[in-house]
Amino acid sequence: MLLTSEARGVYPIAPTPFFDDGSIDMASIDRMTDFYVGIGSTGITILGQLGEAPKLEHAESVAIAQQVVRRAGNLPVVVGVTAPGFAAMRALTRAVMDAGAAGVMIAPPNTLRTDDQIVNYFKQAAEAIGADVPFVLQDYPLTFSVQMTAGVIRRIVTEIASCVMLKHEDWPGLEKISTLRGFERDGSMRHIAILCGNGGLFLDYEMERGADGANTGYCFADMLCDVVRLSAAGKRDEAHDLFDVHLPLLRYEQQPGVGLAVRKYVMMRRGILTSAAQRTPVAAMSKTAQAEVDYLLKRLARHDARARL
Amino acid sequence: MLLTSEARGVYPIAPTPFFDDGSIDMASIDRMTDFYVGIGSTGITILGQLGEAPKLEHAESVAIAQQVVRRAGNLPVVVGVTAPGFAAMRALTRAVMDAGAAGVMIAPPNTLRTDDQIVNYFKQAAEAIGADVPFVLQDYPLTFSVQMTAGVIRRIVTEIASCVMLKHEDWPGLEKISTLRGFERDGSMRHIAILCGNGGLFLDYEMERGADGANTGYCFADMLCDVVRLSAAGKRDEAHDLFDVHLPLLRYEQQPGVGLAVRKYVMMRRGILTSAAQRTPVAAMSKTAQAEVDYLLKRLARHDARARL
Amino acid sequence: MLLTSEARGVYPIAPTPFFDDGSIDMASIDRMTDFYVGIGSTGITILGQLGEAPKLEHAESVAIAQQVVRRAGNLPVVVGVTAPGFAAMRALTRAVMDAGAAGVMIAPPNTLRTDDQIVNYFKQAAEAIGADVPFVLQDYPLTFSVQMTAGVIRRIVTEIASCVMLKHEDWPGLEKISTLRGFERDGSMRHIAILCGNGGLFLDYEMERGADGANTGYCFADMLCDVVRLSAAGKRDEAHDLFDVHLPLLRYEQQPGVGLAVRKYVMMRRGILTSAAQRTPVAAMSKTAQAEVDYLLKRLARHDARARL
Amino acid sequence: MLLTSEARGVYPIAPTPFFDDGSIDMASIDRMTDFYVGIGSTGITILGQLGEAPKLEHAESVAIAQQVVRRAGNLPVVVGVTAPGFAAMRALTRAVMDAGAAGVMIAPPNTLRTDDQIVNYFKQAAEAIGADVPFVLQDYPLTFSVQMTAGVIRRIVTEIASCVMLKHEDWPGLEKISTLRGFERDGSMRHIAILCGNGGLFLDYEMERGADGANTGYCFADMLCDVVRLSAAGKRDEAHDLFDVHLPLLRYEQQPGVGLAVRKYVMMRRGILTSAAQRTPVAAMSKTAQAEVDYLLKRLARHDARARL
Repeated sequence: MLLTSEARGVYPIAPTPFFDDGSIDMASIDRMTDFYVGIGSTGITILGQLGEAPKLEHAESVAIAQQVVRRAGNLPVVVGVTAPGFAAMRALTRAVMDAGAAGVMIAPPNTLRTDDQIVNYFKQAAEAIGADVPFVLQDYPLTFSVQMTAGVIRRIVTEIASCVMLKHEDWPGLEKISTLRGFERDGSMRHIAILCGNGGLFLDYEMERGADGANTGYCFADMLCDVVRLSAAGKRDEAHDLFDVHLPLLRYEQQPGVGLAVRKYVMMRRGILTSAAQRTPVAAMSKTAQAEVDYLLKRLARHDARARL
Repeated sequence: MLLTSEARGVYPIAPTPFFDDGSIDMASIDRMTDFYVGIGSTGITILGQLGEAPKLEHAESVAIAQQVVRRAGNLPVVVGVTAPGFAAMRALTRAVMDAGAAGVMIAPPNTLRTDDQIVNYFKQAAEAIGADVPFVLQDYPLTFSVQMTAGVIRRIVTEIASCVMLKHEDWPGLEKISTLRGFERDGSMRHIAILCGNGGLFLDYEMERGADGANTGYCFADMLCDVVRLSAAGKRDEAHDLFDVHLPLLRYEQQPGVGLAVRKYVMMRRGILTSAAQRTPVAAMSKTAQAEVDYLLKRLARHDARARL
Repeated sequence: MLLTSEARGVYPIAPTPFFDDGSIDMASIDRMTDFYVGIGSTGITILGQLGEAPKLEHAESVAIAQQVVRRAGNLPVVVGVTAPGFAAMRALTRAVMDAGAAGVMIAPPNTLRTDDQIVNYFKQAAEAIGADVPFVLQDYPLTFSVQMTAGVIRRIVTEIASCVMLKHEDWPGLEKISTLRGFERDGSMRHIAILCGNGGLFLDYEMERGADGANTGYCFADMLCDVVRLSAAGKRDEAHDLFDVHLPLLRYEQQPGVGLAVRKYVMMRRGILTSAAQRTPVAAMSKTAQAEVDYLLKRLARHDARARL
Repeated sequence: MLLTSEARGVYPIAPTPFFDDGSIDMASIDRMTDFYVGIGSTGITILGQLGEAPKLEHAESVAIAQQVVRRAGNLPVVVGVTAPGFAAMRALTRAVMDAGAAGVMIAPPNTLRTDDQIVNYFKQAAEAIGADVPFVLQDYPLTFSVQMTAGVIRRIVTEIASCVMLKHEDWPGLEKISTLRGFERDGSMRHIAILCGNGGLFLDYEMERGADGANTGYCFADMLCDVVRLSAAGKRDEAHDLFDVHLPLLRYEQQPGVGLAVRKYVMMRRGILTSAAQRTPVAAMSKTAQAEVDYLLKRLARHDARARL
């Protein structure tokens, strides 16, 4: 079952679970996958920016993809295949699609500048992986330093049929969603799925602007599912009430570098991961930071029972 | 009265009030200054990044500084003098110091890369403006693309006597505050004031890490004053409770580009500014965005009476 | 007499002559202007990137422009007005146009990324300085980090009537000239003057691609005039023969940073400038570098008598 | 035989020969290797920036390394192993060292900014590939956007024993060589080999500043060998005479993007490569550019018989 532009809901960005010695923790992968399925995720994205993909050898990446795909059952699995060259990108894409992935995700190299360079890059990438492989366009200028206007995204969507989803994480980004949905309404762009990343920092208003859901890795993915559901059901105040009680922690987790440590630590405390270990290079969390996260959890627990750990 | 390293509390970053036709609104400047004085600010910073400084001619900048200094009474006024060359920086510094400013603020040009380039730039800048003029070092990599380690800041503080304050807005930045305070404790760096910017997004935890206050322009500067006061008084939970109810709006205002429009709009609704106008180039707020801000204010008003507008 | 799109020949980029104490050397300005007139320049560009413009106060810039305009007689003088904000850009433009300048030159701020950002910036700049002021578009990605495709330049030329000349210094840039001239031939872009910078490193082939001349500051501007003349006259081998004997020194001078020191040193040795002094910050030339330049001049003198100093 | 800090002479940067259909051309690899051996190279560097390394799958890279090592006989072969993560870097390093490579070359990721980030990156990389593997530090800010001061290089050399060679291609870079050799003389840094890249654009003066040779891919690697030999023998004028006649073509080849097409085209015309083909993405050479190269070769042939093709 391939990814289509009708995707919606929450595709959590999964971390890659390691044991303390750096080896891959397949049991935690299973537990995490079960967790994502259980909370009502509509898909799972693995080996993204925060999945420590560059720290994995090719065979390891493939093995992880196989494990998640098997465990996720009917849930579509998207695999990050961003690479410095098309050879590695194609090789990984083939392997994971053979393993049953629903599609892949591609981020642009941070050397792209002009509109044409960006469009051409994705055309070449789409050709390299094969026109039959649906892909997610990752638009994260804060991390990748590539700025795509709504017009450039329209060109990509128009010129490349296999682009089916936007991982929207521009910042600020609310007007971009409105503009893209406007393109659809005025007939100048076909519909694509828009799922939002950037740690979820604006998910509350992104949904109201027309996003289809979330595609990010906040440690309470269950909250993301709830907010998307409430928002889609038109329960505006309830959606914001829930989102707002998570915002202090969510904002804390969304810090570059240390954010992954926070995410893995909370997922460990929630019993999803056995260890919060990362592979080198590690952006570690200080004891003070850990105490701050504990305090944030304690405060959150007053409003959301899932934080009573 | 010159700025010293003992500065603390809140130095709001003041916007520059314009009428709709782009002329400077001196009455709003007075009202805004009175507001800042009234809420317990300990200083005021004008003509910063969000004060639209590059849109002002030299004579206008000087006139604004004179007005604020006169109106602020005993409150120290810091003036942003960032410029592409030392000639303009020196000329503005002399004029505003003559007008009674307490010090100036300098941001690094975004072409600096190596540690030595950064340190040398500030040495040359300090020499250009005069060794007797105290200055605030602005550390905002997200906007200026210059990354200063804590070690580089220590070198600047050690080698340049006139550096008395850090406008801390690195992101993530909590560990940096801890490291700098550690340098002071281990005797490797003299004490400097650390006031925090970055829209206030981490002010709650920055205070606990050892910051002396806030130096940012959130539209509820009174909340910043309260949080700094509560935190300094050891009332941790109260500080966080107040901060958290503002976080949804604060996060919304902290968006690059549109953030200034939000700030001016709310300050207009609060009766501080006559108009929310900006000079060209303007990052305007859409009607949808305005409605979102109104909704954020309505939600905030449930917890903070000052938002009942 | 205003600058038009029919400009051609050589507009040397003039350095700003200082005495050793940093004061402006008006006598050298006159001598340099006379030199440029004498060698057959068709215009002069002052206060560019290598004219140390950011190190000058507004009044100094205006005084220099007045002096050069007076001395240059009928020769059109273009003035660099690049600034971090439109207020300063407009103020300098008005002053130098009042003084008789033929037009101004504008480089983009290094924060521009997308095609639309670039086009919009120049539209706003053109509006700020006034639609009646002809301007030169500076395209120097190596220094300004802004990448404009030929398509973006076409949009600027099409949407802004006052853009009359391109200071072409993209690298590599030969195909860009061919593409732009192709746009003119296929009727999709009106004609503009293309004069080449980048130290002259590709002037030999740029002329053959359709450039109208040179707009750079190589210390032997007389050679630039000769090469442009020979090339325009179809004397291909002679043009290359002359260019090639200068290439070792030209390449040496084109180094970022130290290049200006080399340029001023040779112009001092040629008797054009009284001093090679720069204002702070200075990228100085070591004694070894000076000896290398002396050796390069000695070698050049075997083929070009003008280098016998 | 492992690479040591006593390396000197010329290590040509080898292109990767492809057939027109994109498959690897092993016969050309052999011919090219024989050519490099025959002209007096002292080593060979493969899979560098211009070796199209990111376009190769892991197994292809290993196969190419094996082929070159076998064919090069006693000549040390250095293999570029730059990768976005340490997992791929380690995997390729192990494979090529097992195949008999003398060492590897590592370029920094373009996200590094501060001195500490740079030093830490190379410490982690050295640890990842193994402390027993000698590596070449590639310092090419123009391409990689990472600026390493001489002081940072000294820290790397001092803190990482396996760093034995610098591929020096900073621009401007002459003073950097002088500074590094000064560090060796004043005892603050152990000796390392310095071989120069950047297309050879300053090889003439780099040798006089203390470089040990060249590590670049100019299409007349035989000229590089001659210049290094003449310069090392103190024949200054002869070295410059030979270098200068090549400078027009060398400068043309050193253009980013199209440079590789020029290099492969000339090497094809010289009978070293069967095809000038590149893998996607290709920076192709226009017909006009090809005619320019032919003209450059014709002009060069007047002075250097090797260009009579």
